[in-house]
Amino acid sequence: MRRAITLAALGLGATSPNPVVGCVVLDASGEVVGEGWHQRAGGPHAEVNALRAAGDKARGGTALVTLEPCNHTGRTGPCAQALIDAGIARVVYAVGDPNPTATGGAQTLRTAGISVEAGLLEAAAAEGNAAWLTSVRLGRPHVTWKYAATLDGRIAAADGTSRWITSAESRADVHRLRAECDAVVVGSGTQRADDPHLAVRGIEGAVQPLRVVVDTNGTAVAPGARVLDAAAPTLIALADGVTPAYEAAVDAGAEARAQAAEIVRLPRAEGGLDIPTLLDVLHARGVRSVLLEGGPTLAGAFVAADAVDRVIAYLAPALLGAGPAALTGGGITTITEALRLDVSETVRIGPDLRVTATLVAKEH
Amino acid sequence: MRRAITLAALGLGATSPNPVVGCVVLDASGEVVGEGWHQRAGGPHAEVNALRAAGDKARGGTALVTLEPCNHTGRTGPCAQALIDAGIARVVYAVGDPNPTATGGAQTLRTAGISVEAGLLEAAAAEGNAAWLTSVRLGRPHVTWKYAATLDGRIAAADGTSRWITSAESRADVHRLRAECDAVVVGSGTQRADDPHLAVRGIEGAVQPLRVVVDTNGTAVAPGARVLDAAAPTLIALADGVTPAYEAAVDAGAEARAQAAEIVRLPRAEGGLDIPTLLDVLHARGVRSVLLEGGPTLAGAFVAADAVDRVIAYLAPALLGAGPAALTGGGITTITEALRLDVSETVRIGPDLRVTATLVAKEH
Repeated sequence: MRRAITLAALGLGATSPNPVVGCVVLDASGEVVGEGWHQRAGGPHAEVNALRAAGDKARGGTALVTLEPCNHTGRTGPCAQALIDAGIARVVYAVGDPNPTATGGAQTLRTAGISVEAGLLEAAAAEGNAAWLTSVRLGRPHVTWKYAATLDGRIAAADGTSRWITSAESRADVHRLRAECDAVVVGSGTQRADDPHLAVRGIEGAVQPLRVVVDTNGTAVAPGARVLDAAAPTLIALADGVTPAYEAAVDAGAEARAQAAEIVRLPRAEGGLDIPTLLDVLHARGVRSVLLEGGPTLAGAFVAADAVDRVIAYLAPALLGAGPAALTGGGITTITEALRLDVSETVRIGPDLRVTATLVAKEH
Repeated sequence: MRRAITLAALGLGATSPNPVVGCVVLDASGEVVGEGWHQRAGGPHAEVNALRAAGDKARGGTALVTLEPCNHTGRTGPCAQALIDAGIARVVYAVGDPNPTATGGAQTLRTAGISVEAGLLEAAAAEGNAAWLTSVRLGRPHVTWKYAATLDGRIAAADGTSRWITSAESRADVHRLRAECDAVVVGSGTQRADDPHLAVRGIEGAVQPLRVVVDTNGTAVAPGARVLDAAAPTLIALADGVTPAYEAAVDAGAEARAQAAEIVRLPRAEGGLDIPTLLDVLHARGVRSVLLEGGPTLAGAFVAADAVDRVIAYLAPALLGAGPAALTGGGITTITEALRLDVSETVRIGPDLRVTATLVAKEH
């Protein structure tokens, strides 16, 4: 199952709106005869890939799957039926499928006389599928807020300079995060200050995320902005009724660039756009995981909207003593309201620390 | 030698103005026959303790010492002579003694016909003696700035509440830090906000540090302040000419308390007292290691004075989005001036992270 979880992770960033799934098929004697993972939405599911690799050797064998095999016919046939057809004798899965349209696979398998066990390495498999499971549970994409700061929590110096707080190694690591997510989101402050590109570089075979700029007043994305290139799709979120300033320059020769960007208009909220509506729009487009690379203001708006599920902080061992803080706003006024997280991982990335922390589950 | 380094560390917080030193004596066949460490200033040195434990078995044996044996007669006799007298055949030490009044021990041993080797596990031994070595090199105490903050760098919420940002485990760990240092320093902001006690609790046999309050205008230490109790010595640093407000209350019955505090008057500097003068005063009193538990302003003054050698950050996996930052001031205005550190350790303390980082050595 551990191998199946590793295989599943290979699909991160490419399978939405589907989960990542890995599958290992053993023959009747317990030898590994097939491996597979769900590689991209619309492509064959993990079980089908693994069964193909196993061929006739699957007969009488065992399938280890990270998620309960699906029971419905979408763009591909139901995996439960594929396992039955292949003559699999035993199915072990880690996490039950919470998706009402896909669930019931275990029952179908049992009815067909297959031995079914659930829950093996469930926690590890659920962690690997955290984004998708969150999106099913909450009906919105899973949000990871990523930031780079000094040990004293500054994201830039007093004069606004921030290149570079963290190391080249940390910056390269961010491209891996982007590749694993469906959308990368920044706000107008970051757009204006950094003119970021937001596409994935240096990772072979990576599926480019949707680049999203929250540009409430339409003034942050300048003509020729790097997000307007063709490297990845781009969505610009504006307030209702706003016309983006960069469009004025389109006729002046930037047409090819501008065509890469799609525009969506959303209701205003205090200080910007309505974050739940933005997440609805992204969810409707199939986005299941969002990497929020926004600055302190946008991050504060996400915190205020209860829409941060995970934090990845790249902390440089440096002190500034002045300059903007990593997070501003969020509506927390006293210590008992602090947004509490659990540290799930701390890793050295070059000279820096990467701290991953997930939201402590709230009571329902 | 690793054992000797471990023994040396047992003296942290109790040996100043002396270094911590550990010693293991092997007999002629290589068996451990004596162990010792420098337990407190004025007491016998590590070598003498280890030689006493070894007795006659030291003859023809080897002494492993973390620091070059001293050559001078202070409150105790020179260790080099003690090793010669005990009939030791070979001395291996880790770090050469940089102290001009104590150096020359190796030469004395060689002249007496003893085989001498230097540099074994030098880096590890130097790290264990960092505070003392820094104080010799710079002529001022080694300063560790300790703070507790959220992942986004806040030390309190917007309304000033800060109990508790970090866990009980982290707060207990701070007592260990205090026990290892000679003095604990806070500023008027912390004094006013927290009325801290600053003594070591819960660590058996700990030597209490000198409690130092930088109370520039004499208004922060209130009558009945907890630092005025008898649990540990207290030094209150005031600006020249200032009379502390709490003294007015002494006649009203708090005499016993007030007598525990000593007062020193120092020149003013921008925004407070002159930090180098404060460190001079502490150094003259035998303080070799300072734990700065001050708030953002005092920490900024230490940073501005180039007087932070090590940072220990207790980071709670929590977000606040508002409230005071861990560090304010320090005179850094642009990213290239950032105070760069090396992370030497990251440890989980309960739910929190303790990050230890040391100043990147500057060119001389």
